[in-house]
Amino acid sequence: MAIYLDNAATSWPKHPAVLAAMQDYLSTAGGNPGRSGHSMSVEAARIVFAAREGLGRLFNAASPDRVTFAKNATEALNMIIFGLLGAGGHVVTTGIEHNAVMRPLRRLESLGAALTVVPCDRTGMVDPDDVKRVVTKNTRLIIATHASNVTGAIMPVAALGRIARECGVPFAVDAAQTAGCVPIDMQADNIDLLAFTGHKGLGGPQGTGGLALSPAVELPPLLYGGTGSVSEAEYQPDFLPDRLESGTLNAVGIAGLGAAVAELAKTGVAMLAAHKQGLVAALVKGAASIPGITVYGPADAADNAGVVSLNFDGLVCSEVGLALDRAFGILTRTGLHCAPAAHRTIGTFPQGTVRLSVSRFTTREEIGRVVSALGQIAEMAR
Amino acid sequence: MAIYLDNAATSWPKHPAVLAAMQDYLSTAGGNPGRSGHSMSVEAARIVFAAREGLGRLFNAASPDRVTFAKNATEALNMIIFGLLGAGGHVVTTGIEHNAVMRPLRRLESLGAALTVVPCDRTGMVDPDDVKRVVTKNTRLIIATHASNVTGAIMPVAALGRIARECGVPFAVDAAQTAGCVPIDMQADNIDLLAFTGHKGLGGPQGTGGLALSPAVELPPLLYGGTGSVSEAEYQPDFLPDRLESGTLNAVGIAGLGAAVAELAKTGVAMLAAHKQGLVAALVKGAASIPGITVYGPADAADNAGVVSLNFDGLVCSEVGLALDRAFGILTRTGLHCAPAAHRTIGTFPQGTVRLSVSRFTTREEIGRVVSALGQIAEMAR
Repeated sequence: MAIYLDNAATSWPKHPAVLAAMQDYLSTAGGNPGRSGHSMSVEAARIVFAAREGLGRLFNAASPDRVTFAKNATEALNMIIFGLLGAGGHVVTTGIEHNAVMRPLRRLESLGAALTVVPCDRTGMVDPDDVKRVVTKNTRLIIATHASNVTGAIMPVAALGRIARECGVPFAVDAAQTAGCVPIDMQADNIDLLAFTGHKGLGGPQGTGGLALSPAVELPPLLYGGTGSVSEAEYQPDFLPDRLESGTLNAVGIAGLGAAVAELAKTGVAMLAAHKQGLVAALVKGAASIPGITVYGPADAADNAGVVSLNFDGLVCSEVGLALDRAFGILTRTGLHCAPAAHRTIGTFPQGTVRLSVSRFTTREEIGRVVSALGQIAEMAR
Repeated sequence: MAIYLDNAATSWPKHPAVLAAMQDYLSTAGGNPGRSGHSMSVEAARIVFAAREGLGRLFNAASPDRVTFAKNATEALNMIIFGLLGAGGHVVTTGIEHNAVMRPLRRLESLGAALTVVPCDRTGMVDPDDVKRVVTKNTRLIIATHASNVTGAIMPVAALGRIARECGVPFAVDAAQTAGCVPIDMQADNIDLLAFTGHKGLGGPQGTGGLALSPAVELPPLLYGGTGSVSEAEYQPDFLPDRLESGTLNAVGIAGLGAAVAELAKTGVAMLAAHKQGLVAALVKGAASIPGITVYGPADAADNAGVVSLNFDGLVCSEVGLALDRAFGILTRTGLHCAPAAHRTIGTFPQGTVRLSVSRFTTREEIGRVVSALGQIAEMAR
């Protein structure tokens, strides 16, 4: 039986309720939400709204209408970045960001926007005071990942939110690695824009994600088109969520995501986070005790969202990934994980790392087998 | 048993192979395509590539790499419109377009682009010569729907493609209502950019669709981010499909779409189109013979992609839709169908129409029951 430790790329397995909800949607709901008045379209709209409500509660958003769906976190991040900086201005980010943040920012920089990348320490942690120091009167956005997809380091979002509020600058959080993994409270932490994906920690299917907005911010749409509302106008409706949701939603995916979020809520994110931190602590302790292995990231598993990066002396990380897959049935991701800035920060650019990422379904017994496999590979490499 | 005639909003039911493929994907493939090197990620990438190949064959695209996935046809249309007209210029479209085309165009018009809307006749058909007459040396794009989502009228895309080629202007087709319903040949018809949705005529799930490009055109991305490729660079890769596919794909949806396209290919689009044209002919003939009903759209069912719009003298269309749903279990869509321009063209703005749209699974027997229900409603209204 394979051990799946690539949950930071996409979580697997999904809870059985996810497939059941998608199956049910395709078989019996199946209409186009918000497009027609018949029973199947109304039922589809009800399922989508229930998912909005579940996500709104999970993130403590101001209202479900301000939870908008997108195809993935990347689309949500583009909406934020191009929406707030399309006309130029200054943006502050950190040295641990994923390319879903860095590529849109570099694109805007090439068009004239000013970008400040605040360095992080070698574990991937940013110092909020360093962020505060670089904010200017032209700063239009502070954007930071909630947790590194390379080291798992959980960023001090509450402190960053306080700084953003004090400076009067919108604060955006890339929750791709934390939604469903780490408790998120938009209101307590002054998060104005939360970009999330559905298929990682939330446990939903691929093709889902979105953007939750505080009442303090408005965004222009990135996509214009049919919304099922204000059908008589050739201009985009100005209310949420419709303004930001052009075209048919992935309602079958959202049905699955809604079911995943409902399952999450039964156990609670805090409980699942504790389980995963236990796994991370065991994995880090086990790996770090093997001669020839370097483990990156936070020293304390309580600062980790569920991701462990490591390297073997004298081995290329792709070889290690292949050996783990072929000889031990352990599925990991190797390389740069679409985050070159993060690897520059932790000193692993351009070779990358072997990344092992856990889920709510990973067991202690599996972690034991993984540590044993790492030991055998280190042994062979010697 | 309900009769589902809202297939132009989203097709239902789906072929059993669609759910089976999605189930299989979630249960056993489940990795993130192109992100990791392990077996489940590779299997996910294989499934996505097979869907690309199937779609490429269906549309006679130049190569599968030039079939890119998007969340819906609206995203693909925005990619085309903002990609080619972001810097301004002149664009030509028709008087029968959906808001997925008109809203992005109106947005660009407000930013300074020049827009010419070529009028259509009362059935929703454009005269290619009228298009030819308005092209100027500043025209950057000709964009037209392949078939009206209100009247079903199939546009003369081959003639429009010839004109575009002669004028040296990129030609884009909105195939939201035709992909899987009407044969499409990008190469023969000089289609440079084909926007399609997966959840209508193709029979796939919601959350799928995309954009196929001829070798003659290049587009800048609308979204920037992680692509799983060129991971070391903070700039977007310049090759297809990666350049236009930022963030995790809806691979589970694409698995379903691929299965749907494979099923379509077994029967062939031409055969399914003939079946649907038979249904449309019977429906139009039956409805038009009922006193007090006006049927819109092409006189010949061979010019119809599977959509019939009608109205009852003295009845608001939403009342008719409600009666069809509640008293007869017939599911339709009423109103403007996100296409106000089309309704202005056929003379049904702002009241809209009752729209009945068939699928490959609709039967002659169902059409008979629908005509009978329409007769009873007309009787009651008298």
